[in-house]
Amino acid sequence: MKCTPKSEVYTRISNFQRELQDKNIDGAIVLLNSDMFYFTGTVQKSFLYMPCDGEPILMVKRSMRRALDESPLKNIVPIKSPRQIPQVLSDFGYDSIKKIGLELDVLPFNIYTIYKNMFPDAKFYDVSPLIRGIRAIKSLYEIQLLQNAVSIIGESFLQVPSFLREGMSEMELAALFEAEMRKRGYSGFCRTRAFNQEFFYGNVCTGESGFYPSFFDGPVGGSGPSVSHSQGAGWKRVNKNEVVYIDYTCVIEGYAGDQTRVFCMGQLTPKMVKAFDDAVLIESEVAKSIKPGTLAEEPYFLALKMAEEMGYKDNFMGYKEDRVKFLGHGIGLELDEWPVLAKGFKSPIMPGMTFAMEPKFVFPEGCIGTENSFVMTETGLKNMATIPEVITYLDK
Amino acid sequence: MKCTPKSEVYTRISNFQRELQDKNIDGAIVLLNSDMFYFTGTVQKSFLYMPCDGEPILMVKRSMRRALDESPLKNIVPIKSPRQIPQVLSDFGYDSIKKIGLELDVLPFNIYTIYKNMFPDAKFYDVSPLIRGIRAIKSLYEIQLLQNAVSIIGESFLQVPSFLREGMSEMELAALFEAEMRKRGYSGFCRTRAFNQEFFYGNVCTGESGFYPSFFDGPVGGSGPSVSHSQGAGWKRVNKNEVVYIDYTCVIEGYAGDQTRVFCMGQLTPKMVKAFDDAVLIESEVAKSIKPGTLAEEPYFLALKMAEEMGYKDNFMGYKEDRVKFLGHGIGLELDEWPVLAKGFKSPIMPGMTFAMEPKFVFPEGCIGTENSFVMTETGLKNMATIPEVITYLDK
Repeated sequence: MKCTPKSEVYTRISNFQRELQDKNIDGAIVLLNSDMFYFTGTVQKSFLYMPCDGEPILMVKRSMRRALDESPLKNIVPIKSPRQIPQVLSDFGYDSIKKIGLELDVLPFNIYTIYKNMFPDAKFYDVSPLIRGIRAIKSLYEIQLLQNAVSIIGESFLQVPSFLREGMSEMELAALFEAEMRKRGYSGFCRTRAFNQEFFYGNVCTGESGFYPSFFDGPVGGSGPSVSHSQGAGWKRVNKNEVVYIDYTCVIEGYAGDQTRVFCMGQLTPKMVKAFDDAVLIESEVAKSIKPGTLAEEPYFLALKMAEEMGYKDNFMGYKEDRVKFLGHGIGLELDEWPVLAKGFKSPIMPGMTFAMEPKFVFPEGCIGTENSFVMTETGLKNMATIPEVITYLDK
Repeated sequence: MKCTPKSEVYTRISNFQRELQDKNIDGAIVLLNSDMFYFTGTVQKSFLYMPCDGEPILMVKRSMRRALDESPLKNIVPIKSPRQIPQVLSDFGYDSIKKIGLELDVLPFNIYTIYKNMFPDAKFYDVSPLIRGIRAIKSLYEIQLLQNAVSIIGESFLQVPSFLREGMSEMELAALFEAEMRKRGYSGFCRTRAFNQEFFYGNVCTGESGFYPSFFDGPVGGSGPSVSHSQGAGWKRVNKNEVVYIDYTCVIEGYAGDQTRVFCMGQLTPKMVKAFDDAVLIESEVAKSIKPGTLAEEPYFLALKMAEEMGYKDNFMGYKEDRVKFLGHGIGLELDEWPVLAKGFKSPIMPGMTFAMEPKFVFPEGCIGTENSFVMTETGLKNMATIPEVITYLDK
């Protein structure tokens, strides 16, 4: 299996250690699978100690066999229980750690308590902002992986005309579209960081389904198949002359691309066609406006201003009270990475950052819009899409 | 959309309130989607206050429209930010709550801190064991939903002979099997409660893939498609005369059934055939031994004893150091519910409990075994399977 290059992993480690030194933290205990993968190249039931200086220690409960196969780290040791962590650290010479970093944005309170009791004299610090900040800047290696994911979602979109048909349920359409990506390597769960931010593949909405909101932090909801999973594809049948809206992630080798395309069997109303064109116009104008150093909230404000001037005040990024207040979100190992293109995010967009932008409109008769995955380069924003950004009309 | 009956929701609420009173807790703030769904019938971006007595209050950030459609609760009110919770509770007359329950097994430390600051004079208690205990006993309504999920996984298994073929990748087989369940209503993400317990649909392993362990807390790993998602189906091609092992969940209307079936194009070795028969024998003997009141660890001990006597000491529930120490797990709205059939779980198995049992063996040449979903009744354990428990041989 393809492993993360050693130089890649150790560069990430250096970046993190520099931040730990800056913050005067002795070391961090990293636990979350996505962060674990980023810093070790493997996802095991394991515990990573990242000293502010020197070799990290990967303590593995299960599976050692696999950790040794996959991770380029020098220190990989077996452990039976997290209770042994202080002893292992002491064996490696780390026996006076007093300032410990943890991922306090995701670590459940009860697990935090275990570590607090394990190191009774230590102070704990939330290192998740440091990790998220480092992870927001992608290496060339990561950008290539992300480009591959975006290419595969493109290939999958090109298959839609072969199976979309009148009368099929949104669920059946979702099943077939998901299978196209899955057989091309869709990794499985798309990782998200926020608590309760449940997510599965993406969203198929047809016609008025697009008007149905959900708890998910996106512009479009969808009925979902049941009240227990109330987002995305539902049981509505696909009709002619309505929007078939497909907004999906594609997770390949861990990296999530995100794209939306629109299909129609027949004709859309002039209103919906214009709304699509306006969404594409907003996207392209906003993309042109983004330079290295642009603050992450600025694209949102520009898109909002354009949408309101176009007459979409109640429709932009959701309908009326269900509108969400962002234009895009960082993508990578998680779907909710930094930067977030939203009010209040005043950090600059820097080369190496990757994010999806998704100007969309919701009307009582349905939703429409566009979405692509972008990478910030030294010279400007690059759209990673491999397929055209058009409504695909099918004559069937 | 089908909603949870009002009587069902209010029975659950009464059960929880009785526990809160027993523990002398003023009320609980429920946040996790699965618990939220259980007590309200809806999953929104929302905050549920469950007083130890009286009407609960569902405070909804997004979407009110949908909460009102789906939940039978009397008090559903909009809220802009969790910061308003103390004011809303005060408006409803709850202004001196001092002992507050939270789901501290899942609540991230940073979110816990928000609540601690919001109620500076309160003491906090972990109510997750109370909730998990209540949820472990299913109502007839829930058992019917679970039976439906198990029936749909059965239907999907019956489709396998139509698409399983030599030379296809495990990923393609997974894609097609998943699509069968998805178009029949697979809800999307299968909820799990444990931190980092990532999971996607299930596991396809063929031949020696079944020997590859993973971090996932199950007997069989699988290579997975990449090191970032290192469990389940991978890129190995399916051969003749080897085990095609399919262990999948089926989540319908929120409830997860869990089942494993084995296929083969050609012939298996006598060793593998015997191991399958032995797994089925263990399952049936253990099932017969379980009565209302049996402690949850006893079935594991019996299965382990039988497996060891049969000569599978190094193979039962994993290979050597990668063996897991359980026989089964509770199923319902989450895949890791109570009871857990594992050493140390000394609570009794009671009527209404539902769980999967999965005696399995792992050898260097692959894995084999069985799994079914069961419900405990007043008179004995009932296997919910709708399809036979045999190796399905295909002549192609």
